[in-house]
Formats: sequence, structure tokens, C-alpha cells
Amino acid sequence: MILIISGTNRPNSITLKVAKLYQQLLTAREQASEILDLQDLPLDFASPNLYKRELYSQEFLALRERVAAVQKIVFIVPEYNCSYPGVLKAFIDGLEYPDALRRKKGALVGLSTGGQGGNIALSHLTDVLHYCGLHLLAQKPRFPYIHKHMQEGQFTNALYRQLLEEQIEEFLSF
Amino acid sequence: MILIISGTNRPNSITLKVAKLYQQLLTAREQASEILDLQDLPLDFASPNLYKRELYSQEFLALRERVAAVQKIVFIVPEYNCSYPGVLKAFIDGLEYPDALRRKKGALVGLSTGGQGGNIALSHLTDVLHYCGLHLLAQKPRFPYIHKHMQEGQFTNALYRQLLEEQIEEFLSF
Amino acid sequence: MILIISGTNRPNSITLKVAKLYQQLLTAREQASEILDLQDLPLDFASPNLYKRELYSQEFLALRERVAAVQKIVFIVPEYNCSYPGVLKAFIDGLEYPDALRRKKGALVGLSTGGQGGNIALSHLTDVLHYCGLHLLAQKPRFPYIHKHMQEGQFTNALYRQLLEEQIEEFLSF
Amino acid sequence: MILIISGTNRPNSITLKVAKLYQQLLTAREQASEILDLQDLPLDFASPNLYKRELYSQEFLALRERVAAVQKIVFIVPEYNCSYPGVLKAFIDGLEYPDALRRKKGALVGLSTGGQGGNIALSHLTDVLHYCGLHLLAQKPRFPYIHKHMQEGQFTNALYRQLLEEQIEEFLSF
Repeated sequence: MILIISGTNRPNSITLKVAKLYQQLLTAREQASEILDLQDLPLDFASPNLYKRELYSQEFLALRERVAAVQKIVFIVPEYNCSYPGVLKAFIDGLEYPDALRRKKGALVGLSTGGQGGNIALSHLTDVLHYCGLHLLAQKPRFPYIHKHMQEGQFTNALYRQLLEEQIEEFLSF
Repeated sequence: MILIISGTNRPNSITLKVAKLYQQLLTAREQASEILDLQDLPLDFASPNLYKRELYSQEFLALRERVAAVQKIVFIVPEYNCSYPGVLKAFIDGLEYPDALRRKKGALVGLSTGGQGGNIALSHLTDVLHYCGLHLLAQKPRFPYIHKHMQEGQFTNALYRQLLEEQIEEFLSF
Repeated sequence: MILIISGTNRPNSITLKVAKLYQQLLTAREQASEILDLQDLPLDFASPNLYKRELYSQEFLALRERVAAVQKIVFIVPEYNCSYPGVLKAFIDGLEYPDALRRKKGALVGLSTGGQGGNIALSHLTDVLHYCGLHLLAQKPRFPYIHKHMQEGQFTNALYRQLLEEQIEEFLSF
Repeated sequence: MILIISGTNRPNSITLKVAKLYQQLLTAREQASEILDLQDLPLDFASPNLYKRELYSQEFLALRERVAAVQKIVFIVPEYNCSYPGVLKAFIDGLEYPDALRRKKGALVGLSTGGQGGNIALSHLTDVLHYCGLHLLAQKPRFPYIHKHMQEGQFTNALYRQLLEEQIEEFLSF
């Protein structure tokens, strides 16, 4: 089972569309997967309660449990202000350390409506996830100007499709 | 007027204590300042509404306005999972881009209960704030094992005091 | 006097062409400048002697002296393997610490034949130069696919020209 | 066979001592290994010839060949100016891209005489090596104030020993 984390709680995000495409491609290879959509976070998850496990809501505990239950995780990461979304980091700040991620395997995908494709965002997230003990695939495809290269949930750009397929291929045997 | 952002909403944080110490040192130099405490964020500020300005609450708008109103900003940044707190980044994600920070001056202070003192956190935040157009002081003091070096709101470590004073000296003429 | 460091010793580099363009634009604003071309480094500067000042050649000492003599420095930085050129860093490793750069002002320009424009290279260099005490302009223009956007020493892309002019404008009053 | 790259050409470096210790610990586990010492680089390897493979000396080609021949590589990385040594990066800039490192496995060790232990250096190197396609172990032990914690080629600090042993344990099955 692979968990695909859609890395923002922004409504109607392209990030969630890419997460769904990722799942589709995994299904085509008969690999089971689930999407964890940050829109499902409780509205007040990033309140001061974030730092006290005993104050977590059932909803938040359920999301944490989904991370705890898997061995392989893909992060779909939109670029916000030249880094990952604060909300994604706040979610990671609320995971159990170090058991949530340690010695597991991860893969990162970056996207942006601008020209970077989230490469600095992925660099920052790599620091965070390595610290948490998650081994990451070297291959981190980036998709700049993503809004110009998706239609009806599919990439319209052949190179983008290829990069995603190559990562999946590599991640399945990682 | 210098705005000091206490970079976490964790209750009883050392971060807020360092923010207060910073303010004290500025006052001793007759420099006016204010603390923006992230504990004052609305509990649900990091909900999906974060991405729609027209949905902001009065409380959130008031905090944004305090950033908009100043020309110099100090960030007191605790290290969470080898980076800045997700909540601090979510707050920055909710600021007006690019007017909130562009062409203003900033200074960063890092702290941790571990041995890094937030140096990777400050590196990440530098990427974010440079992207937002904030000019940063090169000098970024870091305070590892901070809990062992503060008592009753003061640094008990002479080197820590000196580093903070040197930054303030430099920032006042930056 | 502004020193423009052409950040590679690769022969016939676009980096040097951009350095010359930068100088031209400064001259048009009646700002004196000089180019420090890393091709002028002694061939063996990165030998084990790099770590012993008393073993430096006259040529290397002369290049160091040019950095020591100025208060404002621009780095033109090509992207090599997702970072700055090793040679540029080796040159910085050979500068006098901390007097060479401390409390001076710097500006960074990134370029690449690929799609990143050196943004991670500039992030790394920012860490290095901040450590050395150089205050950096927040604005760091990046020029991806640079070989497609220069002809006869000029940018053929209007946006690239504008970004460079804006940085210069800002740097002159920094 | 594991290749241990001693990441500086500085004479009498602690880096090389740590490389030898690493080898010793591998030998104790009956794991074959070799040290690639950057002091063996030709004195002028970082000259303009670095960018033209057909101009490489036999000595440089032999060092490149040693990287090409292995599937697992450990980098022992001293911190120079808040990053990796320029010389280490220049060596990487001279490797064959992407065949030298792609789809291989790597592990990083950081050290410094200051208090950081090279954590930003390892972050930068991670960006570079991921770009080159090298999968890295999440665990990256850092050894600050290294000169105070080594004697006669051994760590005198029990925690340092443990961190190194844990990395080796993990790397052997990575």
C-alpha cells in the first residue's frame, strides 16, 4: 500500500488532481494506493493544540494513523512562496516522531504555476523528511507551469508523463 | 518601529521569551518595537480559507495589518523537524504578496532545544523571505540548547547575549 | 566601485558574457565596476596549498586583494549539478575570513542552460555568503535556458533585460 | 565494495582520519571498502580543463574510474564556510553525468571544528547528489567540534561512535 499525500488544503487544487493521476498510474500497475487529502484536516488542526498529543481530535488522530500504517509515501508538493505549504509542514509537525516516518521510503513530486516547479520546496522538504528518517528517492520530478500542462486530470505534456512514469517505476522497486 | 514575530503558536514557548528579551534590548536602546505573537492567530487560520483573502476573519486581517505597517521585522524562529514551524510558514502564506515584505528589512534568530540552533530552519526561511523581497541581515545568531541557557527571561550564557546584542547593533543601522 | 565576479573558469562561458553585460549596464548608469574572471585563477589554485595562506602565489593573492578592496560585489553564478560551480566555492574558501566579505553588500544572478536558472545554486550561495557576513539583495534574478536568450552579448528576452535592470536599480541604493 | 570519499584535499585533515575510521568499522563487519582521498587529485584538476573530458589527465581519469566502478559511496564531508568544500564539488563537477552516480546508493557524514557539524553542508550536498541520481540514506550523522572528540584515529565520544555504527548498520542493508 502506497500513501499519496496531497500536500495542500487549498480547495480545487491542481495538487489533488496530480495526486489522483498518480493513483491512477499506480492502479494501472496493479499497485494499491490511497490518497490522504490535507483538505480533510480539522479546520483548527494548526492551533496551539498541535503541540499536545493528548489534545488531538479523533479526526486528526485518524489522519496520523494513516501515515503510521504505511511503509511507502508519495508527497505531491505545490510551491508556496518558494517552499512547501505551511500547512503541509504543520501536518508533519503533528506526526509522531520518529515512528511515523523513520526507516520508511518516500518519493517527492513538485509543482508550481510559476517556472520553478517547486525545486526549492522539494529541497526544504528533503531536509525535513531526512531528519524524520524517511529514505527518499533521488528522482524528484518537477512540473512548472502545471496549469498549462493538465487537462481533465491528465498531463497534456509528454515529458511530464514520462517523468512521472519513470519515478513510479523507480519507486516501486525502491 | 520594529516588529518582532514570535515564530510559533506553541503555548509557553521559549520562543516568546526570546522575543520579549529582544524587545527589552531594543527598549534599552530607545528603539520602539512590538511583538506579534503567533498564539494570537485565530484557531482555524490554517483552514482552506487561508487561500481566499475575502474569507479572512477580522482577527487575521488585524495581524496581517501589523506586518504591513512596519519596515523592519525580526523573526524569532524555533526549529521544528529541521525547519521552521509549519504554522509560521502558513502565516507567511497568508500575507499579502508581494506588498507585505517587499523592499523591507529583516533579521532572523534561530533557537532549538537540540544542537543545531535552527540553522537549516533559518536557511529555509531565508529562501522564503528573499522570494518575498525582504532584505535580510547576514548575521543570524543561533541558540542551540536554548533551555539550558535562559533563566527568568534572560540569557545566562555570555556568548548568547553578545551575539544578540551584535545583531541588534547591526540591524539598527541596516 | 562594484566588483562583478564571473563565477566559473569554464572557457567561453555565457557566465562571462552576462558579467560583461552587467558591467555595460552599470557603465550606462555611470557606475564604475570591474570584472573578476575566474579564468584568471592560477591553474593549480585548488591544490592542497589552498588551505595555507603563506603558500599562496602572487597571482592568487592579487585576486584576493581585488575582493578585499571593494564594498559591493555581484556574483554571476552558473548552475553546475544543481548548485554553484565547485571552482567558485574553492575561490571563496581561499578568501580571508571574515574580512573579505563581512559587512559588505552583495547581489546574486543565476543562470543555466536548463530550466532552473540556478535557483538552488543561489540558495546554497546565500547560505555561504551570509555565513561570511555579506548582506545580500533579496532580488536574485534567474535566467533559465540562457543560451536561447542571448545574442551578441545582449539579452534577446525583454523580461530578462527588465529583471537585470531592476536588480541593478535596487543594488545601487542597497 | 564501498567507496569512502574523503571530502577535502587539505593536508593532515581530520576528514581523512574519519574516513579511515569508517573503513576500519566496515572491515570489522567484513565489508570490503576503499578510500578515495581527494589529496590524490592532480594539483591543477580544477583548471579550465575540468570542463573538457578529452583534456583529462590519466590521474584524473583513474579517480573518476574508481567512482564509476562502485555501487555504494560514503562521503565524509568537512564544513567549509557553511557548505561542502569547493574542491569536493569541483571533483563532482568533473564526474561523468549521469552515469557516475545514477541509481547508486550513498551515505553522508558531516564534521566541523565548529558547532554545526556540517548540517547545511550535507543539505547542499544532498541537493547535488539527488540531482545526480544518487539515493541517499536518510541518516546523516554530524560531528561538531570533531577535534575534541577524536584521539589516535578513534572517536573518544561514545555518542559519536554509536551514530557512526548505526549509520553503517543501516547503510549495509540500504
